Amino acid sequence: MITSIHNPRLKELRRIARRRDGRFVAEGEDLLAAAEQAGWPALERFVAAGSGLAGEEVEPEVLHRVSALRSGTRAIAVFEQRWSPPAGPLAVALWGVGDPGNVGTVIRAAHAFGAASVVLGPDTADPYSPKAVRASMGAIFAVPVARATTVGELPGPVTALAARAGAPLRGPGEGTILVGAERDGLPHDVLEAAHHTAHIPIHTESLNAAMAATVALYELSRVQRA
Amino acid sequence: MITSIHNPRLKELRRIARRRDGRFVAEGEDLLAAAEQAGWPALERFVAAGSGLAGEEVEPEVLHRVSALRSGTRAIAVFEQRWSPPAGPLAVALWGVGDPGNVGTVIRAAHAFGAASVVLGPDTADPYSPKAVRASMGAIFAVPVARATTVGELPGPVTALAARAGAPLRGPGEGTILVGAERDGLPHDVLEAAHHTAHIPIHTESLNAAMAATVALYELSRVQRA
Repeated sequence: MITSIHNPRLKELRRIARRRDGRFVAEGEDLLAAAEQAGWPALERFVAAGSGLAGEEVEPEVLHRVSALRSGTRAIAVFEQRWSPPAGPLAVALWGVGDPGNVGTVIRAAHAFGAASVVLGPDTADPYSPKAVRASMGAIFAVPVARATTVGELPGPVTALAARAGAPLRGPGEGTILVGAERDGLPHDVLEAAHHTAHIPIHTESLNAAMAATVALYELSRVQRA
Repeated sequence: MITSIHNPRLKELRRIARRRDGRFVAEGEDLLAAAEQAGWPALERFVAAGSGLAGEEVEPEVLHRVSALRSGTRAIAVFEQRWSPPAGPLAVALWGVGDPGNVGTVIRAAHAFGAASVVLGPDTADPYSPKAVRASMGAIFAVPVARATTVGELPGPVTALAARAGAPLRGPGEGTILVGAERDGLPHDVLEAAHHTAHIPIHTESLNAAMAATVALYELSRVQRA
């Protein structure tokens, strides 16, 4: 049993949670169960001593101190990151979405509405950061994530979501939903490069990126419910 | 200018942020602008000295220390709470939704999709808590909030959202969308008391309360876009 915060493997765990050089950390039994269900093996697995969970036992107080989320978790594991190419028929791409909670929520929505991939554009939070992983509620293990730097890399047709411009978004549909930052929206050249521009009809100025992406995925996946 | 954390008015501000006996605290210029736009006057208004904002000046470091959100805000104000009766034609009700961020996000979605009120049922987070107010992005000043303890108090027809039961939710529609806690859903007697049960078709087990309510409000407000 590991009883010290200075244990070299726990030090390495904390380093990975901060730096994430090709690996990442997931916390909590629900997330680790999601990884198992997806057939994504843990490289290391630490559990609270006495919890009866499978893994290297750690004194609960010590485990709590290495937790990035400080949420009283009883299991923490390290995984290899996986990056896929952008894939359709339905994808969602985030451009300049800096909040990891929003990124994780979008991954969760992508899973719920059957999107084939989540594509992370420039200036977008790391989907493997502890907050994004937690917000995904395990969907990070189920939905392929990809990186892109240009709109041309996205599965087409690409529909840019704007606050007011274009037509109201109407499903069913395929291709990529492109979502920008809440305040700044999408840069002009990105809007230009998209095939269509559409908006979600609302009475206010904006939705946040996660809410907008969730509604757009719901609308476009409508065909599956016809 | 206020230069001490021990200033009695700042102490009172912190007390209200914690206890909220009929008043509440909102932080940040965007939120205070939303209050002004809604014609909801501040009882007290504290601003960072040198910011040029209107209000009682406070040394920035001291203002930071009284902030509940610790987000470097330059303006904090105290308001009277307002409670309305549950109102339609379209309302959303939360039952057992304990996370204040979710409650605030639902208030924001209600504003975006034109709901007439947000009704807070039993065991639901306080919409006037600092986190809920912040997550509402100012919508707390625009959408009437109400309390209820029974389904009978909600504007009808009441549609209970379930993970799997009932028909797929189809708009346009009126009445109340009733949303429960993510894990536990709605209690059996609450489901029984609703007029309809419906679900949002998803590939996974659940959406969180805020995502589910957002999609449901979008779907029911569809008539306005026909």
